[in-house]
Amino acid sequence: MTEFPIPRNHPRAESLLIRRKLTAQLDAGVLVPEGMIAHGRGEAFDYLIGEVTTPPARHAIEAAAASLILAEYPVISVNGNVAALAARDVAELARASGASVEINLFHRLPGREEAIARLLRDAGVKKILGIEPSATIPEIGSGRRRVDPDGILVADVVLVPLEDGDRSEALRKLGKTVITVDLNPLSRTSQTASISIVDNIVRALPRLTDEVVQSSKIGRDGLREIVSLFDNQRNLGRILNHILERMKGLSEAKFEMTEALPSQRR
Amino acid sequence: MTEFPIPRNHPRAESLLIRRKLTAQLDAGVLVPEGMIAHGRGEAFDYLIGEVTTPPARHAIEAAAASLILAEYPVISVNGNVAALAARDVAELARASGASVEINLFHRLPGREEAIARLLRDAGVKKILGIEPSATIPEIGSGRRRVDPDGILVADVVLVPLEDGDRSEALRKLGKTVITVDLNPLSRTSQTASISIVDNIVRALPRLTDEVVQSSKIGRDGLREIVSLFDNQRNLGRILNHILERMKGLSEAKFEMTEALPSQRR
Repeated sequence: MTEFPIPRNHPRAESLLIRRKLTAQLDAGVLVPEGMIAHGRGEAFDYLIGEVTTPPARHAIEAAAASLILAEYPVISVNGNVAALAARDVAELARASGASVEINLFHRLPGREEAIARLLRDAGVKKILGIEPSATIPEIGSGRRRVDPDGILVADVVLVPLEDGDRSEALRKLGKTVITVDLNPLSRTSQTASISIVDNIVRALPRLTDEVVQSSKIGRDGLREIVSLFDNQRNLGRILNHILERMKGLSEAKFEMTEALPSQRR
Repeated sequence: MTEFPIPRNHPRAESLLIRRKLTAQLDAGVLVPEGMIAHGRGEAFDYLIGEVTTPPARHAIEAAAASLILAEYPVISVNGNVAALAARDVAELARASGASVEINLFHRLPGREEAIARLLRDAGVKKILGIEPSATIPEIGSGRRRVDPDGILVADVVLVPLEDGDRSEALRKLGKTVITVDLNPLSRTSQTASISIVDNIVRALPRLTDEVVQSSKIGRDGLREIVSLFDNQRNLGRILNHILERMKGLSEAKFEMTEALPSQRR
């Protein structure tokens, strides 16, 4: 849709390239416009975090990997943004963890599940659930209440990246272990999940896959200990502190720039 | 494009309605997908600010109003997001301040200027510059270097809402007074502008128009004093403090929620 070349000297060239990738998936029907806005919210929080995987995010990824290995029936829930940004990463995580992959959309539009399924299949996902969802889960007021009877409905551990609070909360109420990937530590999603990975999905999923592979060598008792020692609220508090410290640092750096102008000093 | 009804009990119903408005303008060719992502970034910062016009934002609006009244030739620069969110507000500000309105786009696509011009005309903007830009300004590596020879090029005060740092910086280098509306106080736009209004455009523009009307009663010396006393860096520092305090408050509120669970206490 946009043919104008990205200026090479643009300070955000990398972000602009990811944006263009998303634009292509919008044209392909994988993403909806609301998904573009959600991506922008994520960008803002990633900027505040510093575009790195923080120590608390790594800690959450370790607990998530242990949960996925211990799970009897783990499922990865995929929406348009997840497919557009990380289809290959989902395929690799599914392979490493043995998790099923289910498409679950807020906006169900004609042909959309199929477009996402195609993207996932091309990325190497063998079996895809949710293309014709026939079961429903209570307490979610949108298209996502419809789930595959062989997928999220019967899962014990569900990874729901880039989702909203309704989803995370409803799945918790059904007694499931909910793992989220969300860049806002204060969001209802992060606040209600069992394990909240506050990180960019393109950094978090490859790291989660590595961690699943590495942690498979740990015995089940060791894995259970990792999960039971993980304190989600405390970990979210650490991420928030990281953001607050970074904003203070950014702020000080900006004010240093103006030291040459005495009238602008605080 | 999306026909699914917004659940009435959704905690962000109002934001969702604005998003749907933007989606309609995406379909109409006024917005580009990149504009949707930029809106999402703004949403995240507005959430951190608390979705209110803060005292420092009001202070910046007062200085901006004084600048616009004192200007010999003020111009309001309009891009797709500004037109989609605030066409009527632009029309009212132009009328109150006597400013010209110029369309200036990062992504110039066939028919896009015309779609934006139609939206502005329908909202009551009488004369629109920039539809066939023929002059260029140096140091901007995109379509926005093309400006109307009777608009921004010869303006002394330029209001450039929802823009990026390149734009703001280049216009400053040309010696112009640059007024921005941007929700991120740390952005290059906010940092390089003469007067940075850190607020949501849908709140800021009506308030700016009111302020122009009210401040027209102040004499020119009084207006010059308002402008000269305004310290942009200091004001941005105040907004950043507001955000930091609010995040601390949000964080404490979240942790209060978990007081019933001793193991989750920090």
